[in-house]
Amino acid sequence: MVNQIYKQVFSFFLSVLLLQSSTVSYVRKSFDLNKPCRHFVLYLHNIAYDDDNAANATAATIVNPLGLGDYSFGRLIICDNPVTMDQNYLSKPVARAQGFYFYNKKTNFNTWVAWTLVFNSTKQKGTFTIMDANPYGMEPTRDLAIVGGTGDFLMTRGIATLKTKLSQGSKYFCLEMNIKLYECY
Amino acid sequence: MVNQIYKQVFSFFLSVLLLQSSTVSYVRKSFDLNKPCRHFVLYLHNIAYDDDNAANATAATIVNPLGLGDYSFGRLIICDNPVTMDQNYLSKPVARAQGFYFYNKKTNFNTWVAWTLVFNSTKQKGTFTIMDANPYGMEPTRDLAIVGGTGDFLMTRGIATLKTKLSQGSKYFCLEMNIKLYECY
Amino acid sequence: MVNQIYKQVFSFFLSVLLLQSSTVSYVRKSFDLNKPCRHFVLYLHNIAYDDDNAANATAATIVNPLGLGDYSFGRLIICDNPVTMDQNYLSKPVARAQGFYFYNKKTNFNTWVAWTLVFNSTKQKGTFTIMDANPYGMEPTRDLAIVGGTGDFLMTRGIATLKTKLSQGSKYFCLEMNIKLYECY
Repeated sequence: MVNQIYKQVFSFFLSVLLLQSSTVSYVRKSFDLNKPCRHFVLYLHNIAYDDDNAANATAATIVNPLGLGDYSFGRLIICDNPVTMDQNYLSKPVARAQGFYFYNKKTNFNTWVAWTLVFNSTKQKGTFTIMDANPYGMEPTRDLAIVGGTGDFLMTRGIATLKTKLSQGSKYFCLEMNIKLYECY
Repeated sequence: MVNQIYKQVFSFFLSVLLLQSSTVSYVRKSFDLNKPCRHFVLYLHNIAYDDDNAANATAATIVNPLGLGDYSFGRLIICDNPVTMDQNYLSKPVARAQGFYFYNKKTNFNTWVAWTLVFNSTKQKGTFTIMDANPYGMEPTRDLAIVGGTGDFLMTRGIATLKTKLSQGSKYFCLEMNIKLYECY
Repeated sequence: MVNQIYKQVFSFFLSVLLLQSSTVSYVRKSFDLNKPCRHFVLYLHNIAYDDDNAANATAATIVNPLGLGDYSFGRLIICDNPVTMDQNYLSKPVARAQGFYFYNKKTNFNTWVAWTLVFNSTKQKGTFTIMDANPYGMEPTRDLAIVGGTGDFLMTRGIATLKTKLSQGSKYFCLEMNIKLYECY
């Protein structure tokens, strides 16, 4: 009787292990999107260079648009944007968003983004990189992929959900970045 | 006798579990390249902007080549290319390939590519990004890395095998993209 | 007595398996940073194009700096740099570092880098891509993320630790790249 139970438990373990070994051909994982291993919200501030604001500017166009459509197709921007814990751009930055983005749609405002968040404080050291399309003219919230990191964010991956909080023509914008990391080391 | 068997089975389980725990220092996985968790073939169409085809153009040079060698070194292109299920560029697009590429070899045609495939239909929503060297002047088929994604392609990784199907001078090209995803969530 | 032991061992297995299944909501792994699955050191050589050295140049500025600050903000460089096993730039290259980088700080020398190491020898075929901020003006050693690969480096991830070994004004620099891969397939 007891042996019977043991045999059943064994066969359960065996099936679990076989199930695990049967997945070696690829990795198929499922997880609850609502349970990231790390989760925090940051605000990015982009002050565009206009030839007169060198002291304040945090981003600058290095290639001007082509005139292909009305949505800045071809404009290429390099940035070193401050990132804060709240929406106030005068708050002390907790990170910098270093990287570039460009406009790539003829029919709407749409950017392609590669930004590395660089943390360098006593609390947090390290980087992670957001890289994806950012269709901000069409969608109020956009999911962008986080593809890798270093230091406190070693090899992390996840999703950054972006919302535009404020936009002042071509001079300034503020983005809310809801960071959800699903791989933490 | 029965106890003997149990002991052996136990030691098997134990060794499996120890093996698992012994790999925590890094992740070494092996899998059958022929068994991706998702596999599909897409076709990308690139119609170069030539100042006269603003309505049809899907890609445009934003920085011209330098004159360093005969293979367009330095040419930088931004694109929003339609992606279809078959080779006909008039077929209904199932995705857009948003991103950029540039020529970076003095001795042959070779590009460096970062393209995000953006799916936005009732069937499929989400993105994934292909990023790698693309030595199309030297190799008829090229493997490029897929490094991350969102939505239906959340955090996916894998390989895109590219073949040039048609190339009409600098005006048009069509690429077959054989997409093999090995991490699916 | 023996049954007692079995029960304890069972409960141990059960707890291990439950622990495993309880982590499906995300992936939290820890590993010894000193034990990569692959580890090697490479040297990258960058010879800047100056209009007179077309035969030797391995990198070229395609967009000039803006004049925003004194640290080349906005300079964009495309490269196909040789990578060797030792610091001698005349050594036979084992790979090419294809990609681009740009200067993005007003207050110090800082680049943002996306380089694909392309191996194409009888010993090694494949690619992997380094992408991250590179604050070389501030930090003697910098960790940059490795985000994906192909061939012998299929889907690899890890860290490249960079040190500048030699820098001759804007003409030449040599970087030591300490490559540590923590995901190997």
